[in-house]
Amino acid sequence: METTIHKIGRYIFSAEAVHCDINQNLFLSTLCHDLLRAADMHSTERQFGMNYLKSINKTWVLSRLVLEIFHLPQAYDEFCIETWVESVMHHFTARNFAIVNHHGQALGYCRSIWSMIDTISRHPTDMLLVRDGSISNYIENSKACPIAGYSNWKTNPNSKCVQQFTIRYSDCDSNGHFNSIKYIDHVLDIWDMDFHKNYSICRLEIAYQTECHFGDNLLVYCEEIQKEEQGQKEFRIHLNKLNPTSHTETEVSKLKVLFVKQE
Amino acid sequence: METTIHKIGRYIFSAEAVHCDINQNLFLSTLCHDLLRAADMHSTERQFGMNYLKSINKTWVLSRLVLEIFHLPQAYDEFCIETWVESVMHHFTARNFAIVNHHGQALGYCRSIWSMIDTISRHPTDMLLVRDGSISNYIENSKACPIAGYSNWKTNPNSKCVQQFTIRYSDCDSNGHFNSIKYIDHVLDIWDMDFHKNYSICRLEIAYQTECHFGDNLLVYCEEIQKEEQGQKEFRIHLNKLNPTSHTETEVSKLKVLFVKQE
Repeated sequence: METTIHKIGRYIFSAEAVHCDINQNLFLSTLCHDLLRAADMHSTERQFGMNYLKSINKTWVLSRLVLEIFHLPQAYDEFCIETWVESVMHHFTARNFAIVNHHGQALGYCRSIWSMIDTISRHPTDMLLVRDGSISNYIENSKACPIAGYSNWKTNPNSKCVQQFTIRYSDCDSNGHFNSIKYIDHVLDIWDMDFHKNYSICRLEIAYQTECHFGDNLLVYCEEIQKEEQGQKEFRIHLNKLNPTSHTETEVSKLKVLFVKQE
Repeated sequence: METTIHKIGRYIFSAEAVHCDINQNLFLSTLCHDLLRAADMHSTERQFGMNYLKSINKTWVLSRLVLEIFHLPQAYDEFCIETWVESVMHHFTARNFAIVNHHGQALGYCRSIWSMIDTISRHPTDMLLVRDGSISNYIENSKACPIAGYSNWKTNPNSKCVQQFTIRYSDCDSNGHFNSIKYIDHVLDIWDMDFHKNYSICRLEIAYQTECHFGDNLLVYCEEIQKEEQGQKEFRIHLNKLNPTSHTETEVSKLKVLFVKQE
């Protein structure tokens, strides 16, 4: 008798007080860690998780992340992350998430785009060649993810440099790369505590463009976009890596962050 | 019929791959977050947790932390944190921890000292006056915690300043203070990746002396102590806060860190 593996994975998380900010909200970066953890559990249960990929010298690489959050979980709240694969192509897969409270109400949604790379050549690899493309058996395209996808936008070369930092040990993941979630911490750190007390994030888009490593010097550029909407603020941010020999800069990531005034 | 509440709490954690370092070890700071999480669950189940204390304008404040670790959990490992109250006095309580793998083998131990403060006056308060001193019903002094306690030492005023940083949004806890665990991240960040690949931490002592807040400028001073033992390195570190008007410095925390060469 076969065990049915559902297409949608559901995982319970708890907003631990030690991971909550001044507003008693779960840090957005912790929520994103939980999303990645749910993705890893979902893919592991279906035999295409990171641990298996490592054994065949491949790994998942996060390429785009779009998150809309209506209510961040508060200290001691339990919440559920649902995740599923929306589509698979040879070199990209779309994975969606719903963040749901214990009443079953959606707190937010997330869309993500992943590629698979060969860990030796660092080149993209065809994910449909892994386990005879079994990932396609889990495509769930009937469940709604009612948020707009990645919007794409041009980086403004006149944006102001608001922060500079060096990538340290605690910033790096188990592959030695700048951790994809640490981008969020470093970017949210450009605003002061008063701003964070008055505004909460409602939408975030990230494009990961170039891998960064320990010791890299990163410059954070920020531009505020004038918005018609009452109480909203939009910022477009990009991170450049300083090339130490040529003193030129390479764009490594860009983010669009939308805040709403707290009531 | 009464439900028996055991003196020792046992909680299962998992070393999530997203929280592992270049050596595939759980970040020490994440392990310490898990210790604090276990402490909060243990005290909450026994009616003296942070959420209850908040309702009577009191809170726990971590004063000393001593950790010895023989093997850090590795990516995907499950482990158990056992925690219990060793002793209670009016203004201090000693809480111990054992970190145990799924075979029941100890991976490490931790000793901590906590005070309770009034959140309005910020002064220490007598914890034996809370719930008629019911915390004393949970004292467990027969379980061994086979590591030496806090050793105390004098700060060397000739230590070298190795790092300077400003406390940002992501560094602050839900009370708006510099998060006790973030001290560990910032201190471990003074060593480069090669050092972390070659040495792993085996003992850590922290004394928390003065609360720090958003915007404070901290200076990290470090002194290496010559050790007889093969393959061991000891560092004594202290963090000073720069007082912006007087340009004097106030010591806010000190740490003793012992590393052992990785095999």
